[in-house]
Amino acid sequence: MSAARPTGDELYELIRELYPICRSLTGDGVRETLRILSRYVPLEIHEVPSGTPVFDWTVPREWNLRAAWIDSCDGRRVVDARDSNLHVVSYSTPVRRRVSLEELRAHLHSLPDRPSWIPYRTSYYHESWGFCVTEQQLASLTDPEYDVCIDSTLAPGSLCYGEWLLRGRSAREILISVHVCHPSLCNDNLSGIAVSALLARKLREHEREYSYRFLYVPGTIGSITWLSRNAESARRIAHGLTLVCLGDPSPFTYKRTLRGSAEIDQAAALALRESGFAHELIDYFPFGYDERQYNSPGFRLAVGSLMRARHGRFPEYHTSADDLGFVAPAPLQESLDVCSAILDVLDGNRVYRNARPFCEPQLGRRGLYRAIGGEPDVADLELAMLWVLALSDGTCSLLDIATRSGLRFGLVQRAAEHLNAHGLLEARASGAEARETACASS
Amino acid sequence: MSAARPTGDELYELIRELYPICRSLTGDGVRETLRILSRYVPLEIHEVPSGTPVFDWTVPREWNLRAAWIDSCDGRRVVDARDSNLHVVSYSTPVRRRVSLEELRAHLHSLPDRPSWIPYRTSYYHESWGFCVTEQQLASLTDPEYDVCIDSTLAPGSLCYGEWLLRGRSAREILISVHVCHPSLCNDNLSGIAVSALLARKLREHEREYSYRFLYVPGTIGSITWLSRNAESARRIAHGLTLVCLGDPSPFTYKRTLRGSAEIDQAAALALRESGFAHELIDYFPFGYDERQYNSPGFRLAVGSLMRARHGRFPEYHTSADDLGFVAPAPLQESLDVCSAILDVLDGNRVYRNARPFCEPQLGRRGLYRAIGGEPDVADLELAMLWVLALSDGTCSLLDIATRSGLRFGLVQRAAEHLNAHGLLEARASGAEARETACASS
Amino acid sequence: MSAARPTGDELYELIRELYPICRSLTGDGVRETLRILSRYVPLEIHEVPSGTPVFDWTVPREWNLRAAWIDSCDGRRVVDARDSNLHVVSYSTPVRRRVSLEELRAHLHSLPDRPSWIPYRTSYYHESWGFCVTEQQLASLTDPEYDVCIDSTLAPGSLCYGEWLLRGRSAREILISVHVCHPSLCNDNLSGIAVSALLARKLREHEREYSYRFLYVPGTIGSITWLSRNAESARRIAHGLTLVCLGDPSPFTYKRTLRGSAEIDQAAALALRESGFAHELIDYFPFGYDERQYNSPGFRLAVGSLMRARHGRFPEYHTSADDLGFVAPAPLQESLDVCSAILDVLDGNRVYRNARPFCEPQLGRRGLYRAIGGEPDVADLELAMLWVLALSDGTCSLLDIATRSGLRFGLVQRAAEHLNAHGLLEARASGAEARETACASS
Repeated sequence: MSAARPTGDELYELIRELYPICRSLTGDGVRETLRILSRYVPLEIHEVPSGTPVFDWTVPREWNLRAAWIDSCDGRRVVDARDSNLHVVSYSTPVRRRVSLEELRAHLHSLPDRPSWIPYRTSYYHESWGFCVTEQQLASLTDPEYDVCIDSTLAPGSLCYGEWLLRGRSAREILISVHVCHPSLCNDNLSGIAVSALLARKLREHEREYSYRFLYVPGTIGSITWLSRNAESARRIAHGLTLVCLGDPSPFTYKRTLRGSAEIDQAAALALRESGFAHELIDYFPFGYDERQYNSPGFRLAVGSLMRARHGRFPEYHTSADDLGFVAPAPLQESLDVCSAILDVLDGNRVYRNARPFCEPQLGRRGLYRAIGGEPDVADLELAMLWVLALSDGTCSLLDIATRSGLRFGLVQRAAEHLNAHGLLEARASGAEARETACASS
Repeated sequence: MSAARPTGDELYELIRELYPICRSLTGDGVRETLRILSRYVPLEIHEVPSGTPVFDWTVPREWNLRAAWIDSCDGRRVVDARDSNLHVVSYSTPVRRRVSLEELRAHLHSLPDRPSWIPYRTSYYHESWGFCVTEQQLASLTDPEYDVCIDSTLAPGSLCYGEWLLRGRSAREILISVHVCHPSLCNDNLSGIAVSALLARKLREHEREYSYRFLYVPGTIGSITWLSRNAESARRIAHGLTLVCLGDPSPFTYKRTLRGSAEIDQAAALALRESGFAHELIDYFPFGYDERQYNSPGFRLAVGSLMRARHGRFPEYHTSADDLGFVAPAPLQESLDVCSAILDVLDGNRVYRNARPFCEPQLGRRGLYRAIGGEPDVADLELAMLWVLALSDGTCSLLDIATRSGLRFGLVQRAAEHLNAHGLLEARASGAEARETACASS
Repeated sequence: MSAARPTGDELYELIRELYPICRSLTGDGVRETLRILSRYVPLEIHEVPSGTPVFDWTVPREWNLRAAWIDSCDGRRVVDARDSNLHVVSYSTPVRRRVSLEELRAHLHSLPDRPSWIPYRTSYYHESWGFCVTEQQLASLTDPEYDVCIDSTLAPGSLCYGEWLLRGRSAREILISVHVCHPSLCNDNLSGIAVSALLARKLREHEREYSYRFLYVPGTIGSITWLSRNAESARRIAHGLTLVCLGDPSPFTYKRTLRGSAEIDQAAALALRESGFAHELIDYFPFGYDERQYNSPGFRLAVGSLMRARHGRFPEYHTSADDLGFVAPAPLQESLDVCSAILDVLDGNRVYRNARPFCEPQLGRRGLYRAIGGEPDVADLELAMLWVLALSDGTCSLLDIATRSGLRFGLVQRAAEHLNAHGLLEARASGAEARETACASS
């Protein structure tokens, strides 16, 4: 209640704290991350044993990395995972032996166009080992042989994810899903982790209409695992967002749900328009993040995705350049504000029925309308009340009314509260009830 | 039948005759106005007693004004309602006493940006008194005290409105609604009164398909009163127009119904396009004139609004500058022509079913198609017949066909008459039957 | 099977062979044309007796022309049908007598704006005789009298058309309809005849999903005759095209079906977009060619029209300038390719249901997805598989998926084949089953 307003600095500091941790699909890096997040979100931690079938997939073995390096035969350490978590291909099997340069090169990944950056590569579902190096490091490898060591374990264990349900007045849920499997990458997706954590803290400040489910899951396999174990909960999800790449200074991008005309799509469009920030609304496409799983034909949950720089479209994507210099407090704070605004629209959305539907009710005698007539302009709040009365026939939501009228959602909401307080509206749907809008309109 | 074609001059003269009358929501000014209108429209005059409940409202007391002035203490008359009806705030309660300049100023309305214009203000539902003055008059008031007099009565009486039903072949109605509560303002809305009056006279010249209901009502409370007393009649209203601000030289503006895709919306769009006059089609918004009441959720009547300058958007709006110099014969005549054209489209609209639906019928042997083939162009009427035959499957109206083909409505109508005369069409719906168009189209 | 790929030259040579034949609605010119076409298409030839009622029409008498000329009284032949079939108005009744210049001129047609071109005119349904001449010929007629001869017969006989059904796996049909009634005009419509003939030959090379019906009919009366005798077959027509004006170098024009959103409309739009050729998609209008009959209200078959220069819109239309110099091998070949591509899209279109609809199936363990993750781009085929999985909920066709994703149809098709081979899709509709797409989309 008295929590200080989270700031960009706090978001940035959280990213800085999480940055060094070596995360992957599974393993202690994820656990450590969730432990830190628990300071903000009272997470329930789930451990799902390796081998558990989850729809078409199987929970993989658990991977942990202790150390990894490449040494020259005369003992120089030319690559060391202590310098960057990205140096090791995630899920690399253990290896410790002398290899020829030729064999080694077959296990190396680099970025010819970005000679000083380390790429981020994974081999989750294909047993192999590898190193990611800068092009400069690659060029320096000229000895005939090297000693390589990946001191990892890939063994039965469990997949770990964190979950928190903030109960609101309604059992209908809004899902916030964030992936936690990326190692030292700031925008993708420590930014989403940080923004969601402070968002969760903020949502707790006041009672909400919807219940909110926060999921911190390893990408793809994590959301698949959750969905396979929570069919019942999934049915309660009315709207959702994956939060990704929210720390860079690009304009906002909202990726619509597969259906493309869901309430979350409308809410995001409105909140972004009202934010005044540059933004783009883009259509759904079936790659990216966990929205793929939520929107799959068997679920078709209305989950969109909020980001700034677009997945795969910025040069720093999945490289060591997605570091603490690529994200900044100001865009992080803006992202938190926009997320918050989208959720406020959804949470405040209502469908009313005009309780005096035959002609306009007399607002003036209730003190809701000016006494002196004849002026050319209508005050904003009066105008908003007229819009609410005109469209509230039990099919139009406040969001529909704000969209159609071009008025700010908050003003429309305030108008509805005034009218409601004077008995001029009947609630038709609690805000969190499912509905398809078939709003009277052109 | 042999009535001379109404002209812009006649419209302008009617406005000139009505201009000096002091109208308000109620009172003798309205009665005098309706008496003059009865020369054109055989109005039935209704008197509804003060205190009558009408939906959420109550018919107000009747207001009449005999005289009003402000005198300096040395007897100079500085403001006099005989100079302009606008000088008195409409529905001002009686007052006759000496007041301090400070008290007086609290009762004065002026337009700082338009120093020589008098604003038009009302206080229908809030008991008070006031004067509207020019900024120049306001500046000249420098004495410490003034004598003010408003010799008005605000007392039980009645609300008066005029109504005329022109019966057509069908009981389904087209509503023409005009407000009659504005005093000496020409565009808003003596222009609507004049245009509707001569429109009514014109409609009587030939039998019509629809019945036409003309309402002359005080704004807001008048349409509410009518609707509250005529639920049965309201259900027969298929389409409607409020006519406002039709005398100035601006391009036309058609404000759509709340639904936005009603037949009247389609007819107005087509008639305006065919008129060749500059025009704009705008979406519904819940302020303006009596269309607000007709489109309210309990009625949702398809009533649009035809105007030239837009409500509240022209500087002269609700000021003494909306005078006899602001309106002119030519735009008035054009407005009458456009109204008439819209109604002709609605009245002539039909849904047919092609009586020879398997392939095209042979038009040539019926003399409906040229004898010699091979030319690259099709004559307009032949083309229109082909369109009517192609689309008349019992769902498309002639208006749909004109809209889709881009042909003039009159040509499509003539084509249908030719085809009908040769037994090639079956009437599916009399023109005035309600229908939602689900016309076969892309 | 081993047929050489048809070329533009072969198309052009076929046009050259057909050019001199004097075709009309009926008569030996049509029979000779169908005989030549039988080299490419195993046509079944139908003869329908004059006088047979066909819907609102009657099969006309058969017309044949042996000779026609205009001689000066001193024996100079000033017009001779041996120079151009166009010189005689088609269906001219026999005449052989001396006429005054004045009478003769009433029977002459010319093109004042194109003094060296002969127009093409017909008088199928109105008994008369006439000549079409150049403006220059017309000017040279200065004698007071001329001898005219039209040695024609107009007598009971039959209307002749050709038909071929290529049976595919499904009984549902795609219709290719071409008119064969035009005499020596190359673009309109020897080009359509030639393109369709080589298209037919090409379709025979591999088994098809749909059955294909090729109709070679005289314009209007021919398609009416066919429809009146084949109500049962008509019901099996799922999609269709009329092929017209395909030999000139203009951009392509696809004229949509009357409904405007049929699968053929979507397929033509996609195939033309993928072709890279300039093209325009235009809405249906009820004149042009036999698509008028197929789209009539009693049938509403989804038949569009593919052309290059638009019917009636090019100066050479229906004149002697639509000759062997106006068409060329290259555009003919392109037209054949585009036709073929449209049919391939329709034939290959399928609706699947994702067999693993809950989340994405694990493509990697099936070898359908790369082993190393983290790269910013998805390979085209992987991307196409993701689209197919995401949208295949039993309502979206592969054509819908290609349209929505912007991916090439062939790639989407290949992705579906891969997924199908791995048991990840269930066929919901055989490609040729009727369906209205209600694809999950924005």
